Amino acid sequence: MPEFLTLLPPDDARSLLFANLASPWPGQQDVGVNSALGRVTAENVTAPHPLPAFARSTVDGYAVRARDTYGASDTLPGYLTLNGEVPMGAAPILTVLVGQCALIHTGGMLPSGADAVIMLEYTQPVRPGEIEIQRAVADGENVIRIGEDVTENQVVIPRGTRIRPAEIGGLMALGIQEIRVVNKIQVGLISSGDEIIPPDQAPQPGQVRDINSYSLAALVAQTGGEPVFYGIVPDNFDALKMTALRALQECDLVIITAGSSASTRDMTADVIASLGKPGVLVHGINTRPGKPTILGVCDGKAFIGLPGNPVSALVNGYLFVVPVIEKLLGVNIDKPRPSIRARLTVNLSSQAGREDWQPVRLVASAGGWQAEPIFGKSNLIFSLAAADGLIKIHPDANGIAAGELVDVFLMV
Amino acid sequence: MPEFLTLLPPDDARSLLFANLASPWPGQQDVGVNSALGRVTAENVTAPHPLPAFARSTVDGYAVRARDTYGASDTLPGYLTLNGEVPMGAAPILTVLVGQCALIHTGGMLPSGADAVIMLEYTQPVRPGEIEIQRAVADGENVIRIGEDVTENQVVIPRGTRIRPAEIGGLMALGIQEIRVVNKIQVGLISSGDEIIPPDQAPQPGQVRDINSYSLAALVAQTGGEPVFYGIVPDNFDALKMTALRALQECDLVIITAGSSASTRDMTADVIASLGKPGVLVHGINTRPGKPTILGVCDGKAFIGLPGNPVSALVNGYLFVVPVIEKLLGVNIDKPRPSIRARLTVNLSSQAGREDWQPVRLVASAGGWQAEPIFGKSNLIFSLAAADGLIKIHPDANGIAAGELVDVFLMV
Repeated sequence: MPEFLTLLPPDDARSLLFANLASPWPGQQDVGVNSALGRVTAENVTAPHPLPAFARSTVDGYAVRARDTYGASDTLPGYLTLNGEVPMGAAPILTVLVGQCALIHTGGMLPSGADAVIMLEYTQPVRPGEIEIQRAVADGENVIRIGEDVTENQVVIPRGTRIRPAEIGGLMALGIQEIRVVNKIQVGLISSGDEIIPPDQAPQPGQVRDINSYSLAALVAQTGGEPVFYGIVPDNFDALKMTALRALQECDLVIITAGSSASTRDMTADVIASLGKPGVLVHGINTRPGKPTILGVCDGKAFIGLPGNPVSALVNGYLFVVPVIEKLLGVNIDKPRPSIRARLTVNLSSQAGREDWQPVRLVASAGGWQAEPIFGKSNLIFSLAAADGLIKIHPDANGIAAGELVDVFLMV
Repeated sequence: MPEFLTLLPPDDARSLLFANLASPWPGQQDVGVNSALGRVTAENVTAPHPLPAFARSTVDGYAVRARDTYGASDTLPGYLTLNGEVPMGAAPILTVLVGQCALIHTGGMLPSGADAVIMLEYTQPVRPGEIEIQRAVADGENVIRIGEDVTENQVVIPRGTRIRPAEIGGLMALGIQEIRVVNKIQVGLISSGDEIIPPDQAPQPGQVRDINSYSLAALVAQTGGEPVFYGIVPDNFDALKMTALRALQECDLVIITAGSSASTRDMTADVIASLGKPGVLVHGINTRPGKPTILGVCDGKAFIGLPGNPVSALVNGYLFVVPVIEKLLGVNIDKPRPSIRARLTVNLSSQAGREDWQPVRLVASAGGWQAEPIFGKSNLIFSLAAADGLIKIHPDANGIAAGELVDVFLMV
């Protein structure tokens, strides 16, 4: 029986894969900003003009020359002559001269002569055309200056940024209608195993439906990839190699979910080894679930062999497929994964020296979130569907005690 | 100048809104499971058959009758007669009789007569047709029984579940090709303000581009809503009311982002009050940014008035628009928002009695994640684009000291 001779820790395995990746740049395309949500910028976005493009008031009040307000207070107010009102959406025609002020609304353009705004609540009209001010303001107070948000030509969104609602808002503010994004990563999905049938067929005794192609396709799609289905291949080296070769030519990343038995897992490794250099980098990872995971690179392109066990395949999809796609997209992968701090409800044991990933359900309690482990044999897909996330048990631990705080990585 | 007489804390404001919502059920539709990612189930999904549908081996080894292995050990092995091999993907024809075993692979169907599997590594062939076993196994060991994952008619995915890759995997395992999901929530977006112009136009002095319709549309879309644009309406009660009425008839939720000044914000409240009962529920929230946020319900439909300030509009989109959409979708909103535990890099002061939401950038350090506040006037949209998330400063605090641990809510 073939053995896993060198089981690498997951982080080391991932680093080794990254170090060998030399994937061709997946290419780029221009997309309208309104359909750019979730896409990744292929180049720096710079500001075509400063923002704001004119000095604006941040409050409702009176535009003033700050110097005219110096010394004004509740007990010793100052008095300014009202010189009109700044219209919204247009440049004010009026100028604020020494001893004058002008009514201005939040967002209004600061009239020439004025350099600050005094809030309405620190003023009162004393008679028509005269305003009492009960406080002094400093030069620039309650004003956003030209370019205070961004200056002309400033990089406002760096290359490798995943577009969120905030970026869309910023692009709109600058009138940018189209941006250049990285093409979606083409991810070839091959399912192998004589016992596997398509999900729309009724299984005969001994047969099971293909789960992994579809759970992984969903994970790929939401990470910024485009799943390409290569179907179910029987446990036959030549058939598997032929399909894998085609996938490797057409995609940026290829994933085989192996048949369940050791011999079919080894077939995946043999296929990877036959398709390019350096071939198999990692054959077996020191983790549960996921020990039989295979990581390889064939002439620069990543090739991942995942266990056929659907829980193992999906958990290792989160651990390896997601980071590889993000790496290929050029996303900053040093940003944290979303997690929740929770208190473990029961003792969890684990084998020292191995990194375990345990599915848990999050339950609200008076003392905060509680993490309830979902037990059961590791290949029950609905144990994963019932889980909100995974907790990591470090290899140097024998487990985690009930009541300890853990970080639950959300399986979104 | 109108004042915010009763500023509610954000959580109370949200609860009051929810208590008054009686939105008509947004309707439901059947979608293919392959396009169901992110959608929300409209009814419980039940299993049409047990999973697995036959007893399967979880290891490579020999199918045995457990009783035949009792007493076997390294020093006193037992011997069984090899009765053949279980094929993958088909029901075994052979039967395991007393004193017999059959070679079986992971995922193979347990042959009749057998009730357990002994792992290959605790066995060795001694001569053709005879296997030495060095360990005893218990009844059911290394076997997944029929229905051990799910039983027939079991609820496998409850109503109100957002479909993730794990659910897609589970549905495929059961051969379910289509599910009933809640329709996307129609969200009407109205931008008001005389100074606002469409983003594809060049602003004249005093004018700014519409940011909020687009940043909020992206937030709506990624939450499970469908943004419906009603354009930019000038600061005119009748025009605003007419547009709002149409949006209210056509949508499940209406959002007005007000012009910047106090008078236009009050116009939003007047419009909400004129469109149905109970009208305005919350006028002013004890938070920063977002004090001028207005929450209302008109004849069962939610109506939200957000400040024109783009940072305030988007932050309050995360605080109010996202939960309302999830509530209307029927999602379990008691699940936690993704967050990251980080150490604050500098002192943050805040006004006691008010809940503050401070944008921060997350930076990796040897000691874990650090949260670096992004300062700047609160209405700079690129200060939000530079942020990874928000930290909440509780109203009973005067701030948070440098070095304290904080939860950073990710703005995804």
